[in-house]
Amino acid sequence: MLYADCLSINSLGHLAIDGCDTLMLAEHYGTPLYVMSETEIEKNVRLYQDSITDYYDGRGSVAYASKAFCCKEIYRIMKRLGASVDVASGGELHTALSVDFPPERIFFHGNNKTAPELARAVEVGVGRIVVDNLSELELLDSVARSAGKRVLIQIRIKPGIDPDTHDFVRTGQIDSKFGFALETGEAMDAVRWVMNSEGLELMGVHCHIGSQIFDINPFAHAAEVMVGFMAAVRKETGLALTELNLGGGFGIRYVESHNPAAYQSYMEAVSRSVKAACAQHELPLPFITLEPGRSIVGAAGITLYTAGAVKKIPGVRTYLTLDGGMADNPRYALYHAEYDACVAARAAEPRDTLVTLAGRCCESGDLIGEHMPIQPPQEGDIIAVTGTGAYNYSMASNYNRLPRPPVVMTREGSHRLIVRGESYDDLIAQDI
Amino acid sequence: MLYADCLSINSLGHLAIDGCDTLMLAEHYGTPLYVMSETEIEKNVRLYQDSITDYYDGRGSVAYASKAFCCKEIYRIMKRLGASVDVASGGELHTALSVDFPPERIFFHGNNKTAPELARAVEVGVGRIVVDNLSELELLDSVARSAGKRVLIQIRIKPGIDPDTHDFVRTGQIDSKFGFALETGEAMDAVRWVMNSEGLELMGVHCHIGSQIFDINPFAHAAEVMVGFMAAVRKETGLALTELNLGGGFGIRYVESHNPAAYQSYMEAVSRSVKAACAQHELPLPFITLEPGRSIVGAAGITLYTAGAVKKIPGVRTYLTLDGGMADNPRYALYHAEYDACVAARAAEPRDTLVTLAGRCCESGDLIGEHMPIQPPQEGDIIAVTGTGAYNYSMASNYNRLPRPPVVMTREGSHRLIVRGESYDDLIAQDI
Repeated sequence: MLYADCLSINSLGHLAIDGCDTLMLAEHYGTPLYVMSETEIEKNVRLYQDSITDYYDGRGSVAYASKAFCCKEIYRIMKRLGASVDVASGGELHTALSVDFPPERIFFHGNNKTAPELARAVEVGVGRIVVDNLSELELLDSVARSAGKRVLIQIRIKPGIDPDTHDFVRTGQIDSKFGFALETGEAMDAVRWVMNSEGLELMGVHCHIGSQIFDINPFAHAAEVMVGFMAAVRKETGLALTELNLGGGFGIRYVESHNPAAYQSYMEAVSRSVKAACAQHELPLPFITLEPGRSIVGAAGITLYTAGAVKKIPGVRTYLTLDGGMADNPRYALYHAEYDACVAARAAEPRDTLVTLAGRCCESGDLIGEHMPIQPPQEGDIIAVTGTGAYNYSMASNYNRLPRPPVVMTREGSHRLIVRGESYDDLIAQDI
Repeated sequence: MLYADCLSINSLGHLAIDGCDTLMLAEHYGTPLYVMSETEIEKNVRLYQDSITDYYDGRGSVAYASKAFCCKEIYRIMKRLGASVDVASGGELHTALSVDFPPERIFFHGNNKTAPELARAVEVGVGRIVVDNLSELELLDSVARSAGKRVLIQIRIKPGIDPDTHDFVRTGQIDSKFGFALETGEAMDAVRWVMNSEGLELMGVHCHIGSQIFDINPFAHAAEVMVGFMAAVRKETGLALTELNLGGGFGIRYVESHNPAAYQSYMEAVSRSVKAACAQHELPLPFITLEPGRSIVGAAGITLYTAGAVKKIPGVRTYLTLDGGMADNPRYALYHAEYDACVAARAAEPRDTLVTLAGRCCESGDLIGEHMPIQPPQEGDIIAVTGTGAYNYSMASNYNRLPRPPVVMTREGSHRLIVRGESYDDLIAQDI
């Protein structure tokens, strides 16, 4: 289960992350505890960045999709690494700006950005606003004109790719709350609308075909479709778009059976596809942006819990109770997402017992996973769930008024708190 | 869709709650906005309380299950109404105590209470701790002895009732993370353990058969099974248990097709069942506690949103975008829960358009519902989603770093803020 490079088993037989003993971390910070490896995050960003250098002459950028894991420190790290970021709300934008993240390296996403959010984005000079629909074009144009600015945008296109079949489908992916449809002419209409606008300048197109995708081909196919649209834009309107934003959705290995592609291979395949399509359409190569989120932080994170009661129900199953659950990780409740887990103190021993990891909320569905292989557990054991770096802290709630756990960042044997755990008084801070 | 008494259509044709115009509330407080009717909450509590008087000579109590909606004000209301409350964590306990809720009227629940939580509960003199498992019995006994106190408890039993079939099943409900099983002898062993303990005194038994149940019979059946267990306890150990806590799970009408029983009818049926079983076993009638949560606050709440873009996808569906979504109401994402919605300004007009209510998170699954009948919507409309009083605010997250909305309480035409909405600075308050 040690899929991430940051995970190892130390000389005591304990699970370690980035050289830090997980039992030490649990003792030092308490449980439940999120732990993230900066080394792993940095490695993943570099893999994407280097792949753009290697396969596309460096004519592209990596924009970390911060909805996967958002706090001040992740923006500091992306700033240092020279990465861009994508933000999905005024709250994410505020967090990025609070640590002086360069606004010109921010992509602002969202299917329903509000007027105050757009005004703020324009005011601070966000690099690109990725516009989702005609209403937003109208609103943003009005905001831009009021501010006396010309705002650089991309428009979000539904390329009609079904990542499970690689087919260009007429329904299915057209049935999305996001973006302009190609097939209906909506996307081309949007291009013409922007060309006639006063406040907006269309730099390129964006697409995002899905999440946790293991296969490379749908991305290459989407790139081909998007270049085809850029060619059609030039032909029909004369406008030469220079930017192609291919979004994210690259899968990670949560459990043994998952088999994601190597992160570098996306850019390799996409580059080949874009170059071929541009040659065919006689277009110059566009500047490409990738927006990985999960694949940058997912495998870099683990969650440490303390085991409570072990409930063996003869002939049925064994419940292992944790001091956290759906409030800090709702992904099993939401998607039946799969995770691996181990007893941190006995990480080298065989995982020959099947347990259902039960959370502590008063809700039957509060599970982290069912029938998970683990070392024979005992009450009081520190239990590590791996692959929790993405969409755990960012989706956490205070259900049952459980305080959200702290987040610790590790780096080559050192560790530091990056998000404080909530206190009981934090929970009632908004209550009147 | 005006199932709750607190909802009406006013002379302007607007949806009103508790006499307050929803457009006025949206204008005054902004959207998204949770609104709760104190009148409705009070009515529901009284229905349960009165049913105990009417059908069981008042020998029982109502304990509001505060995980459904937890904040300071709800405890003040329950205090005023003479209700007890059930808390599911140290955070809920802290909230209740912060407004001087009488500790002796608190039931402390949970399948994995921590040592500090139990110590606090014992210190402040919580009325009953509902113990879930043997580990907790051992821990609590140790806590009680350290504090030099004798702690009054109930034990949580799995009565083996499947609420969908009314069958006493050997698997199924025995497959729960909660409580002691009857069939395996585990429950009787727990009784004996408590009788031999120094720090604990067993007052009664607790069960909870499920959630959002429309039928009365499973509750009556569970009551019969539980009285049978109390009789077995007396016979096998000589211990006379005086308390029967039947939990909650009473269903509410979210949409037209839901057909829940009248709240009073639970106690009518349960009372009959308990009296018959007690007569049969020659037991005195126990003191009964009911723990409704959803059925007290669910129908009392609505959520107000502002509509963004209306996306008509020809031949597929129409998306109506909201300025909230799964971050403030994750129940469709979690359970495909059903809700009703209307255009607040045209609430009296026919709901003859089908829409998919899409949230604003960067996530395809961020929907409030699909194919929901609504008045023909326009951008800028205030959209009301009804029946959101339970498990919305309490399950809300900051996903995409969206601030959690404020909560407003109405009472016969007046309105007051009871939970402040979060600011952007609140979102980064824990970030280092």
